[in-house]
Formats: sequence, structure tokens, C-alpha cells
Amino acid sequence: MDLHELIQSLQTEGGKIVMLVSDGIGGLPMTPGGPTELEAANTPNLDALAEKGVSGMSLPILPGITPGSGPGHLGLFGYDPLKYQIGRGVLEAAGIAFPVGPNDVCIRCNFCTVDENGLITDRRANRIPTEESAEVVKLLKAIKIPGVEIFVEPVKEHRFVVVFRAEGLGGNVADTDPQKTGHAPLEPVAKDAESQKTAEIAKEFFKQATQILKDQPKANSLTMRGFAKKPNLPSYKELYGLDAAAIAVYPMYKGLASLVGMELVGQPASLSEEIDVLKENWDKYNFFFVHFKYTDSRGEDGDFDAKVKMIEELDKVIPRIIELKPDCLVVTGDHSTPAKMASHSFHPVPTMIVSDLARTDHCKKYSETEANNGGLGHFQAMYLMPLAMAHANRLGKFGA
Amino acid sequence: MDLHELIQSLQTEGGKIVMLVSDGIGGLPMTPGGPTELEAANTPNLDALAEKGVSGMSLPILPGITPGSGPGHLGLFGYDPLKYQIGRGVLEAAGIAFPVGPNDVCIRCNFCTVDENGLITDRRANRIPTEESAEVVKLLKAIKIPGVEIFVEPVKEHRFVVVFRAEGLGGNVADTDPQKTGHAPLEPVAKDAESQKTAEIAKEFFKQATQILKDQPKANSLTMRGFAKKPNLPSYKELYGLDAAAIAVYPMYKGLASLVGMELVGQPASLSEEIDVLKENWDKYNFFFVHFKYTDSRGEDGDFDAKVKMIEELDKVIPRIIELKPDCLVVTGDHSTPAKMASHSFHPVPTMIVSDLARTDHCKKYSETEANNGGLGHFQAMYLMPLAMAHANRLGKFGA
Repeated sequence: MDLHELIQSLQTEGGKIVMLVSDGIGGLPMTPGGPTELEAANTPNLDALAEKGVSGMSLPILPGITPGSGPGHLGLFGYDPLKYQIGRGVLEAAGIAFPVGPNDVCIRCNFCTVDENGLITDRRANRIPTEESAEVVKLLKAIKIPGVEIFVEPVKEHRFVVVFRAEGLGGNVADTDPQKTGHAPLEPVAKDAESQKTAEIAKEFFKQATQILKDQPKANSLTMRGFAKKPNLPSYKELYGLDAAAIAVYPMYKGLASLVGMELVGQPASLSEEIDVLKENWDKYNFFFVHFKYTDSRGEDGDFDAKVKMIEELDKVIPRIIELKPDCLVVTGDHSTPAKMASHSFHPVPTMIVSDLARTDHCKKYSETEANNGGLGHFQAMYLMPLAMAHANRLGKFGA
Repeated sequence: MDLHELIQSLQTEGGKIVMLVSDGIGGLPMTPGGPTELEAANTPNLDALAEKGVSGMSLPILPGITPGSGPGHLGLFGYDPLKYQIGRGVLEAAGIAFPVGPNDVCIRCNFCTVDENGLITDRRANRIPTEESAEVVKLLKAIKIPGVEIFVEPVKEHRFVVVFRAEGLGGNVADTDPQKTGHAPLEPVAKDAESQKTAEIAKEFFKQATQILKDQPKANSLTMRGFAKKPNLPSYKELYGLDAAAIAVYPMYKGLASLVGMELVGQPASLSEEIDVLKENWDKYNFFFVHFKYTDSRGEDGDFDAKVKMIEELDKVIPRIIELKPDCLVVTGDHSTPAKMASHSFHPVPTMIVSDLARTDHCKKYSETEANNGGLGHFQAMYLMPLAMAHANRLGKFGA
């Protein structure tokens, strides 16, 4: 019996869960023994949660492994990120919050320019501006191929997403980008029998697309990369019995949440608006994923003080969440983003669970130093959802 | 995707790593609440490392499991010791630093004495002295068998190693030692089809050997045990992209290091000479395994005070290592050897990582009590290499 079968067999009715993910929340001291960003921040509300709840350290993947946003969030959502891998095409589609279905093959496409012989002169179409690119993408929506539904969506600059939707399409097709100029885009080649049809569709798509694009001054051809289907993930409803809502500002996190079957609610543009959305939808769901981006952004900038300020922003909304009386409030991150490294890192993530069922520990602050010795110990992120479910009294007894 | 595939896919260029393994470093208090050997020792340099780095507890195998040197080191080197098992023949060959290759079948042999009917009278040839045994071993080097390269190497007293080198030899042959006197050595019997040829070679080896030995007064026959090929380990270079050097005094540890593809450098006869070798080879490698034996030896002796002294010896060389400015210095042991038990034990091993990327914790000393609550938490030894790689900035991000 694996973890998912176990959880699925034990799920029961229970309380409401809020999982507040502060992206890249974990940090590093700038000098040995100094405070981390979290420890430098003034966070009276988060600290009160630490006192009331139980803390610990979440390992996003395994010791020493730094996750991207995809694996980082899959872990938090309770899916083993080494088992369920999100292909690049699907991640790109998730990144624009495209609702990827089980019969979809997603492809990251690049506009490029080719000469009169069809040889690539610029692999990124001189990074055509996003607005212009979006107009060219619209033209491609005219492409029709019998038996397959086709979606073409702009991303940014020369990048766009193509999705083929039909039953029985394999996702294993080689990239058509020759990776250098002076060569024509490659033919789409299937890497297994199930992907033969996908390759044929891609070939036809490319044919029609180049016909449409041939007189476009800035982008007269395209390459297709990262063909992928979404991993066969059980949904939140199946796995946990939860009606889950995702509240995020950035499309990437909406996309990741929709991969596991969460509903995307609201169109918030700030953390404060995210909490408005949470409040408005409070009665409609029993699980809420609330994503706060800017702790990661300022960490990536390498700006310690700015990250501290973002943590303080986060702290300020805590009373508004508490007001809703969630049965289980989880505060965590998908990984650490220390300003010192200006990048995602492998360091474990300070995590708290506040619930009436929490076995309170001695932690008085939300900080790396305190969480390190908290009652939750050090655990892989994929166990956070079982812990949250348990703390919301949503898991029955295993065995008699 | 398993851990090795993951690590291999993420390896990048980065800093230099020193892994200082103090064999059997972990200990026990002689009376409840008393100090361990490490806590009784005066270790200002190690304590300074604890303050600067991050500490934790390494579990050699799994909770409660006491490792021998083989599995203990495989774990430290990042190989799951339950997956990769080192057969006895290979361990014996490693113990004399014989460079075991992928086509080698290694066999632990014992000289024995037989009567005129070929029945064993002493299974260990009265523990023939090492010097005399080595002379008899030399005679066996005359054995020739077509199509196979044969190595015969002395070990100690009645023990020696035989290696058959040829493509396509299986390692699954039953022991020929009947385990009691009054019986002839058994025929070598293959336990699978791939080992048929190995059994034939062993039969021929035994025939020629007994011919050569028949008039030897002290050792006129032999038994063959622990037939084994080396486990199919990815090398340090493949797995981590590291050019690794092993610096050890004792042959066993050189042998274990060579199994994973480390180069054996220098011929040091003491810890101080090991550090000389480290310094001399500093520019040639980016990973150094430095093995210190005597903490284990004195633990095995059951001599608490002598082990304390050895720990203090270790402490004295730390500044010479620090001087070289490793990007990541790991201080650990392959297992605990508490003087109280006078043997290897299952207890977790206090471990430190010193690096600019370490998230410093509250640990101020290198000790079991402090490491127990350190920032690395408790982790299986097989995750120490991923942690070291991460702290040397040698692992890229997993997923986007």
C-alpha cells in the first residue's frame, strides 16, 4: 500500500484547511550566526501562530535537492515529486494557467525567423515584443486538423503554447528546434508508438502554421519543444476528498494547482485581494491554497531587506485569515530562496501547523532556528498534506 | 527517478569538498548523563567548526542497524548500502587495496592442512605466520589457466585473496570450505548458469594449487569462500562529476574508496601525513576523502580515555585543513564505536558541514548532544553526499 492508497482509504469529513504558501520563505543568515530574513523580520502575528501551533522543517524533495516551482508545489500538494514529473510543455501551459486536461499534449513553441530557403536566421524571432507576438498567435488559431482540438495561447515575447486535445495521443515527440541557426526546423519525430499520431498532427500543424506565417515580417516560422502530457495525478477530490480552491496572483501557481484539480477562484492582484477572495469563498470549499509570491521574488533579487519587508507584509494579513477560524492553518513555503544566494535553494523550509489538534512545542517564533527543533521534526514536503489532513481531523484510523 | 539518476542529472561545476571521516567517532556516556568520548575531549577547533557550520545526526543505514566498514562507507559515499552489497570476496580484496575491476571475481581463500587422503586436519593451517604464508602465496602465482587472468595476493596468516579476471564470469559459486575437519574441501559448485565457467576455473585453480602445495609442510591445501563480483556501482565521476581522491592509512578504506572510483593518493602512515598528502594534491582533485582510523580502534579496545585522546589528535589537524579553504568541509564517521560497547554500534553519528551556504544553527560544539538538535536534523548517511554537493554549490535545480 502506498501513501496515496493509504490516504485515500482513510479520508473522512472534517474541518477546513488553509495552506498559506509563502514562496521561497526559507532563508540564510548573511554571516554565520546572524539572523535569516525571517528572523530579521518583525512578525508578531506569525510568532503568535508558532506559539499556538506546532513547527517543523519541510524538505522540499530530499536532502540537498533544490526544487523548481513545479516539483516544489507538487511536494506541498502531497505528490512525490520524483514520481510525478511535470514535462516542460505542461509547465509552460500551467504557467499561463491553461487548464490542462488528461487528453492534452502541451508544447512550448518559439516563433523564429527563416530565410527564403527555410533555414533559421533567428531562433527567437529577435524576441518579438509580447503584444506583437500575441497578434501573430491569434492568426494561428485558424489552424484546423480533423479529429483534434487545438489551442494556441501566447506566453511572452517569442514564446507561445500549443495544445493538442484528442484521445490516445502520446506525449513523446522529439523537439523540432535544431538548436542552431542555418538549419531548418526539424520534423517532429515520435519517440514511441503511442506518439506517432501526435507527431503527424504536429507535422500538419507546422505545415499550416508556416503557410499562415509566411509573409509575417517578424516571425515567419516556429519550433516546437517539450511535448508533454500531464502526469497521471489523482485529483485533490479523489485523493483527499477535498473541494479545493486555489488563490494566487501568478499564473504559474494557478496552473500547478489546476493540475491537481483545484478550482481557481477570483482574480486577485495582491495579497490583500487574495485574502478578500479567501473570505468570499469561505463557505464553498474545505481546502484553500493561498500563494504569496513576493518573498521568493525579493529573495531572487538578492535583496535581504526587501525580502524582510515582504515577510512583514505577509504577517499583516494573518489576523484576517485567523478571523475565518480555519480548523487547520498551514504556513510554509515550496522551498527556500535565501537573498544571500539570490536563487532557490535546498535548505529546509520552516513550517507551522495551527490547529486545535496540534501538539504545541516550545516554539515561540516563526523562524528557521525555532522550527528546526519543533514538534513536527524534519519531514519531506510530501507528508505535509497528510499532516494537514490529520490536524483538520480528516483522516480515520488505519487498521483496527 | 531514483536518487542517483536525480543527482547525476543535476551535477554541475562547483567548489571543493573535503569529507573527513573519523572512523567510529560517535560514542556513549559510560554512565547515564555522563559525557561521550567526544564530549569529554578538548576540541576547540572542531567546536569552532560547529559554530560556523551546520550539524546533524547521520544514520549509517537505518535506525537500529550497526554497519560494518563496507556498508558504513558505502552509505557515506552516497550509495544505498541495502541496494549495493559488497560480497565478502570483494571486501577482502578491498581490504588489501586490490583494485577490483568490473570483470573480477574475488575469492577469500584459506590455507589449510590435509592428510594423505586429502581430508582437512586444520581449516586454518595452524594460523601459519603472515611472512611464511606470503611465501607460499608467491608459489601460487605460477598457476596459469587459459583465457583468464589470475591474481593471488597475501592477506594475513592463513588468509589470502584470489581474483579471476575475464569477461562473462559470474560470481555465484558456493564455498568450498566444508566447515569441519575430517572432510575434503568441497568441489566449487556454480549457483547459477553465469557462474558455471567461474566454477570450472576454480576447479582447475584448486587442482594446480594442490599440486604446487602438496609438499609444503605448513599449508598443503586451500579452501575458497565468498566468491563475489563488485557491485555495479556508478563511479564518483559518473554520479557526482567529481575527481575524487582517497587519503587513508589502512588498506580497507583505500579499497572501499577505489570501489567507487576514487584515486588513491600518497602513502601516508599517520594522520599528519594524510594532511600532507591532502595539501600536496589540493589542486588536482575536487573531492577528498580523508580517513582517520584510530577513533574506531580505541573504541574497539573499549578504552574511553584513549579514544578521547585520539579525538584530540584529530582536533589538532583541523586548522591545517581549514587553511586550504575547502568550499565544503564535512566531518563525520561511518558509524559509532562506543568504548562502552567495545564494538561498532547502531547509534547515529554526529556530523557537521562547514560551508558558506550552511544555514548555521545554535550548535557551539561538535558533540552528540548538540548535533542531535542541529540544523541538518537526523538523516540517512546516503544523503550526506547530496548535502555536501549542495553545500559546495555543485547541484543544479530540479525541475523548473
